[in-house]
Amino acid sequence: MSLVVPHHDGSALYVSGHAPGRISLGEVVRLRLRVPQEWGSASRVWVRSVQDGEPRYDAAIRLGSIDGWDWWETAMLVANPVAKYRFLLEIESISASGRHYWNLNAQGLFNRDVADAADFRLTTFAPAPQWLHQATMYQVFPDRFARSAQADAHPLPDWAVGSSWEEPVVATGRETPIQFYGGDLPGITGKLDHLQELGIDVLYLTPFFPARSNHRYDASTFDSVDPLLGGNQALVELVEAAHSRGIRVMGDLTANHTGDAHDWFVKALADPGSEEAGYYYFSEDHSTYESWWGVPSLPKLNWSSEALRRRFVTDDDSVVARWLKPPFNLDGWRIDVGNMTGRLGAVDLNHEVARLIAERVREINPDAALLAESTSDAAPDFTGEHWHGAMTYSNLTRPLWSWLAGDAPHVNFFGSPQAGPNKIEAETFLATHQDLAAGFSWGVRNSTMNALNTHDTARATTVMLDGGQEVGALLTFTLPGVPVLFAGDEFGLEGFNGEDSRTPMPWDWQEGKSSRHPVKDLRSFYSALGRLRSGLTALTEGGLRWIHAEGDALVFVRETADSAVLVMAVRDSARVCVDNAVLSKQQLHSLSAPPLHSFGNISTSWGNDGDVLLCADGISAGIWSLPGTCVPTVVGGAD
Amino acid sequence: MSLVVPHHDGSALYVSGHAPGRISLGEVVRLRLRVPQEWGSASRVWVRSVQDGEPRYDAAIRLGSIDGWDWWETAMLVANPVAKYRFLLEIESISASGRHYWNLNAQGLFNRDVADAADFRLTTFAPAPQWLHQATMYQVFPDRFARSAQADAHPLPDWAVGSSWEEPVVATGRETPIQFYGGDLPGITGKLDHLQELGIDVLYLTPFFPARSNHRYDASTFDSVDPLLGGNQALVELVEAAHSRGIRVMGDLTANHTGDAHDWFVKALADPGSEEAGYYYFSEDHSTYESWWGVPSLPKLNWSSEALRRRFVTDDDSVVARWLKPPFNLDGWRIDVGNMTGRLGAVDLNHEVARLIAERVREINPDAALLAESTSDAAPDFTGEHWHGAMTYSNLTRPLWSWLAGDAPHVNFFGSPQAGPNKIEAETFLATHQDLAAGFSWGVRNSTMNALNTHDTARATTVMLDGGQEVGALLTFTLPGVPVLFAGDEFGLEGFNGEDSRTPMPWDWQEGKSSRHPVKDLRSFYSALGRLRSGLTALTEGGLRWIHAEGDALVFVRETADSAVLVMAVRDSARVCVDNAVLSKQQLHSLSAPPLHSFGNISTSWGNDGDVLLCADGISAGIWSLPGTCVPTVVGGAD
Repeated sequence: MSLVVPHHDGSALYVSGHAPGRISLGEVVRLRLRVPQEWGSASRVWVRSVQDGEPRYDAAIRLGSIDGWDWWETAMLVANPVAKYRFLLEIESISASGRHYWNLNAQGLFNRDVADAADFRLTTFAPAPQWLHQATMYQVFPDRFARSAQADAHPLPDWAVGSSWEEPVVATGRETPIQFYGGDLPGITGKLDHLQELGIDVLYLTPFFPARSNHRYDASTFDSVDPLLGGNQALVELVEAAHSRGIRVMGDLTANHTGDAHDWFVKALADPGSEEAGYYYFSEDHSTYESWWGVPSLPKLNWSSEALRRRFVTDDDSVVARWLKPPFNLDGWRIDVGNMTGRLGAVDLNHEVARLIAERVREINPDAALLAESTSDAAPDFTGEHWHGAMTYSNLTRPLWSWLAGDAPHVNFFGSPQAGPNKIEAETFLATHQDLAAGFSWGVRNSTMNALNTHDTARATTVMLDGGQEVGALLTFTLPGVPVLFAGDEFGLEGFNGEDSRTPMPWDWQEGKSSRHPVKDLRSFYSALGRLRSGLTALTEGGLRWIHAEGDALVFVRETADSAVLVMAVRDSARVCVDNAVLSKQQLHSLSAPPLHSFGNISTSWGNDGDVLLCADGISAGIWSLPGTCVPTVVGGAD
Repeated sequence: MSLVVPHHDGSALYVSGHAPGRISLGEVVRLRLRVPQEWGSASRVWVRSVQDGEPRYDAAIRLGSIDGWDWWETAMLVANPVAKYRFLLEIESISASGRHYWNLNAQGLFNRDVADAADFRLTTFAPAPQWLHQATMYQVFPDRFARSAQADAHPLPDWAVGSSWEEPVVATGRETPIQFYGGDLPGITGKLDHLQELGIDVLYLTPFFPARSNHRYDASTFDSVDPLLGGNQALVELVEAAHSRGIRVMGDLTANHTGDAHDWFVKALADPGSEEAGYYYFSEDHSTYESWWGVPSLPKLNWSSEALRRRFVTDDDSVVARWLKPPFNLDGWRIDVGNMTGRLGAVDLNHEVARLIAERVREINPDAALLAESTSDAAPDFTGEHWHGAMTYSNLTRPLWSWLAGDAPHVNFFGSPQAGPNKIEAETFLATHQDLAAGFSWGVRNSTMNALNTHDTARATTVMLDGGQEVGALLTFTLPGVPVLFAGDEFGLEGFNGEDSRTPMPWDWQEGKSSRHPVKDLRSFYSALGRLRSGLTALTEGGLRWIHAEGDALVFVRETADSAVLVMAVRDSARVCVDNAVLSKQQLHSLSAPPLHSFGNISTSWGNDGDVLLCADGISAGIWSLPGTCVPTVVGGAD
């Protein structure tokens, strides 16, 4: 499968002419397309947009040729808040059969008509904060991260089964949600050095509200921080300490449900006439109620209640608002089960609720981040209008697990009944990745969490080939999106399902104070990746152009006009030839320098015609610095 | 490309257990999947549905095997008004690499994860009237169909350039919309014998309101029938005469715009303070207004106006209502530019307006049909909630033109700047068809118009290979959807664009009264197809299973438990072997009988192992009757 094909993406090389920062409704933007000269000569090119529901074609002009590529440009009116478009190419010379028309959309190139679902899209919504795009995120599950000395003073709560830090995690069964290790917020504050050394920019905490489980997704109030975690003051201190190190802190909020011990639900249950009864979905006789996935301890919130909307979102001291304001100053929220929030049967208030929350968050802090969980195909709910990005497994995590799957496949595969992931080839990884990312605008794609694993999944190390975690991690740092570590990734921790992965951290093993040991010490591996990424605009803003995806090897370029990188990821020995059809001579030449970062055994050598051979011996990955990508001088823009 | 693959569609062979007529929210339906035994043995099968936004997996049980297929069944809760689902198959034996997982959705089979966009879908909306599914539709452009004696009495309107019936159509330029032939409704009434002989069930009239063009999409009022067409009484008489012959009549309504001579717009323009001014989108200073595609004679309606909603839809004698009631008794509407209606910039009231119109139509006559134009990818707007089906070119017309394209390709290809259609192979036809139809529920797909051409396109005969019209027409009658003739198709008329195709009908040529002659007389060809279709539930309700799509040949089966048909369509000589992996022995055997209908040169012969060879010599098509498809006896349904 040749990947030397016409290319466009949402990055600045291909989209320009709009006001800085945000595209306005009614603005005319310039869109560029590059066509490899070896692929065939395009005789005409159009952008096909959909405006007020109707397709419209704008003819492109050829800007010129450079480094083996023809560049085309056209102007397109952004007629609607989500402006969908694709390219139509007339190619004369690709085969003996004469003229043929091709469609290029975010899924790739088609020699036929296609549906609009995978069109590229520009949006006029407020963009995500810049810091989110540049950040490396670190997820902490507070009960399992670190225990401060204060924690010893807390009596064991009535719902919990206490566990010492050294005991194994109970990964399945009744005890799983109540096994209590007693990690707390001061414990996290005490480990900020560790985060800083890892190069972390954003600390994302799973819920810190009081609850009746170790995961705390069953909040019993949204009004205070769990005293077991140190209470409100501990959060204030954690955020202050983090901020003083340049680390932002995000919280985790269940907008879909509360716990059944929540003070709202307790009132609602006791008094069918109460305001709180309207926050939930009770049966007529008040004997039953709707809950998350039928689990009675997680009663589902009813967003048609105006009172709930006020209390949760719009009031001065609403749940959404309060924790973003002083003295707490959280930098944003991750919304739990974003995909189910506001949805029940014939009622679908999901986007309405998301919009309500987003407006409130931006009102308080325009620089706050708002992410939402949507484990499967997230694109339809993530237009960029409300959630900045998704915590999803569909476009990257699942296909990475499948491509890098090892021989211990009996792990829980994201709630699917599959006995582990499919083993797929690199070309299938790419097809899946493009299919599931195609519905995201470029902005949403860059704000979406690139996790190799989370508190809800098995650990990559358990799922993947030996070395797969490193190769996979390198991809999460180099593909568009926000790289995320789940605490313990830097120690190569293992886990066969989400619960098993919530391992207490192996601190103090060097001093012999703990029998918990790292499996592998990947701290410098991760910190180097994070430093590299935050310093390279090609990685945080650059376009994404695939140049090889076959069997065991993936190669792509991230590029801007100023700088670029080439990334190679190999799960088993492979050689990939890169030539002047793909990169400029200057870019090829720079591959002779050592990679900026590498894993395994990777090298480059020169072929006969100035081609470069990328060689990987065993599972490997590397990142090379390249000069930026040249675009022919624009004489005046498209007419 | 083997098409002997697992199969499911929305027909009764695969979806059952629900209340007759309509699926209710909260109902549990039974879904079946068939897996060819030669393809590999499925060890486990699940239905993956999305419920309240979250994926859910229901395990299927194996019902048993019959005729070389394993049948699986599972129960699925219809949790939401649009219930999306696909199948997940665990296959042990398909290759040496062991266990693999496959996804089957409405686009086909994937060896990887897929987005939800092409999931199968069940809906809880009111189904389209049964008569629509069984109908053959006939589209008439009144100015060009037939002139009654009365027409001579009408003075030529001031906007028109008169034309005698014999003069050629002016297909481009200023005169195109005003060239006036003077066909009228009594003319149509006088030709109902012709329609009845053709086997027509539904007459669809493009607009009959007064206007200032021959197409009348620029209505100057919605209150009366154009006197040039014979006025209100002529419509009453036409509908009565049609009904007495069992022919239903549908009208055509522009909900997106009016003409600038419309009495509403005239008032609106004159008086910025008038109620009517609110029906349109005027600039602040009232100097300019929004219009369809920037054409000032077609001012766009503003559906945020409550007064417009009342006058157009909800009032007792609203536009939508009045013509469906006595004495006019239209049987439904086709809504013009359905895709743009209610959409402008940041405002998108499209589904709201569609819902409003649909509720009103069903209130007046639950058995009325409501179709809407959506020329390109129609699926996102056609959930089945409001419009029953689409007048679209995306899923069938365009790919048929491409597969059957001849050597006169410089025809307007549905507004695209392409110089005619791509020439594509049968496998690409199928991929395009499945891609663009995947977003329709089975009900919407069966209510969508299958047109080979319309008043807005070139004529198939001009676009296609010699014989292509016949092969294409046969496909419009045998694939899911409502077959539609544009008046003149039965005479093989030509046209290189929509305007050129609006040819006056060649009546009376036999008596030498007219110099207009049929190009080909296809009347008996079409009437036989229509009669065949209306008598075969396999064609109006049966599942659709593709068994061959390669190069020049397409073969598929439409099937129910009681009866089935096999359809072969060939654009150039082809031989296709059909064996016991695809059809039962009884079905294979029935292929030795002559086809129910055929075109060109087509025959069957027997191979060595009981296989049947379908042979086509040149461009050909045929339909064979088969016995129904057997499902293993169900012991008790899935658990």
